[in-house]
Amino acid sequence: MLRLYDYLPSGNGYKVRLLLRQLGIPFERVEMDIVRGATRTPEFLAMNPDGRIPVLELDDGSHLAESSAILWYLADGTPFLPADRLERARVLQWMCFEQYSHEPNIATVRFWYHTELTDERRALLPGKRALGEAALAVMDGHLRTRRFFVGESYSIADIALYAYTHVADEGGFDLGPYPAVRTWLERVRAQPGHVPITQG
Amino acid sequence: MLRLYDYLPSGNGYKVRLLLRQLGIPFERVEMDIVRGATRTPEFLAMNPDGRIPVLELDDGSHLAESSAILWYLADGTPFLPADRLERARVLQWMCFEQYSHEPNIATVRFWYHTELTDERRALLPGKRALGEAALAVMDGHLRTRRFFVGESYSIADIALYAYTHVADEGGFDLGPYPAVRTWLERVRAQPGHVPITQG
Repeated sequence: MLRLYDYLPSGNGYKVRLLLRQLGIPFERVEMDIVRGATRTPEFLAMNPDGRIPVLELDDGSHLAESSAILWYLADGTPFLPADRLERARVLQWMCFEQYSHEPNIATVRFWYHTELTDERRALLPGKRALGEAALAVMDGHLRTRRFFVGESYSIADIALYAYTHVADEGGFDLGPYPAVRTWLERVRAQPGHVPITQG
Repeated sequence: MLRLYDYLPSGNGYKVRLLLRQLGIPFERVEMDIVRGATRTPEFLAMNPDGRIPVLELDDGSHLAESSAILWYLADGTPFLPADRLERARVLQWMCFEQYSHEPNIATVRFWYHTELTDERRALLPGKRALGEAALAVMDGHLRTRRFFVGESYSIADIALYAYTHVADEGGFDLGPYPAVRTWLERVRAQPGHVPITQG
């Protein structure tokens, strides 16, 4: 059985959990206390030298890291990843946007609020806030004329962007100015097999 | 003909240029002065709302952004991207590692050195330096027993990681402590059709 090394509050972990549930693939979840260094042990670093969850343990005992790579691996050949070459590249474009322009700002600020807002972090907050708002504005502009991020159907691009957007308020981001994002969040939530981030 | 919106010093742009050259695909390069706001005009934002190069203009006039997505699109079906599902996911894992754990540190510091090391940036330097060194250590550990990042053959994972690693010294990173990385850089440079980052 697949084994997912995970951390319940993590949106990156949630992406994989959500897709596995929607694909109906059984898996064992192993909770890692990342705040107490559980991903910095020699055993964990042997699975992912970058020391981050999620990590998926495959049936052959090998490991795959990086949420986007795990989503891609699981979704390939299913309706969650289009078959068309250009549409696939567009899915990847939005997943890369999420990891580069969205997650380091919106997810990081949420993590700081959940853990500790040190003076050092407080100094970085205005910059993170501005970049997070810019990412939400990019999403809102794109969604103004579309139902989903790519090809008018629900894909792993939507899963990747939903994960931290739907809890952006936990980092003090107000989705009020982004009506297209709010409507899209509802649309994602209405997908068959949807589960909340709190479900382990 | 394909058109690449690019910025010569950019490693992200270089990744695409290098692959296009190695694939023998002709393209027109459009230099964008990112420091002077060329990627923030309404015309550019219509191509990539995230306001970043590289952007690839396809023959149908549509646009693809994000270096990893462009590499994937171009390499799919060629020897630069394996056919095996798990190996493909591993290529993506390393490309995601590059964009999340490597580029924001190693490339960003290089950009600051190339442009301006303001007081604000100087304050962030020790953190970026530590994370950049950690990324180089992860690469070195992986390459100690391997010729290339995935499946013992040159792929877009190598192109993605080569781009900013081979110019890391321009951001003050010393590759001396990473012998496996240095040997791998030579191996990448020896690939047929290799061109330097300075070649437009």
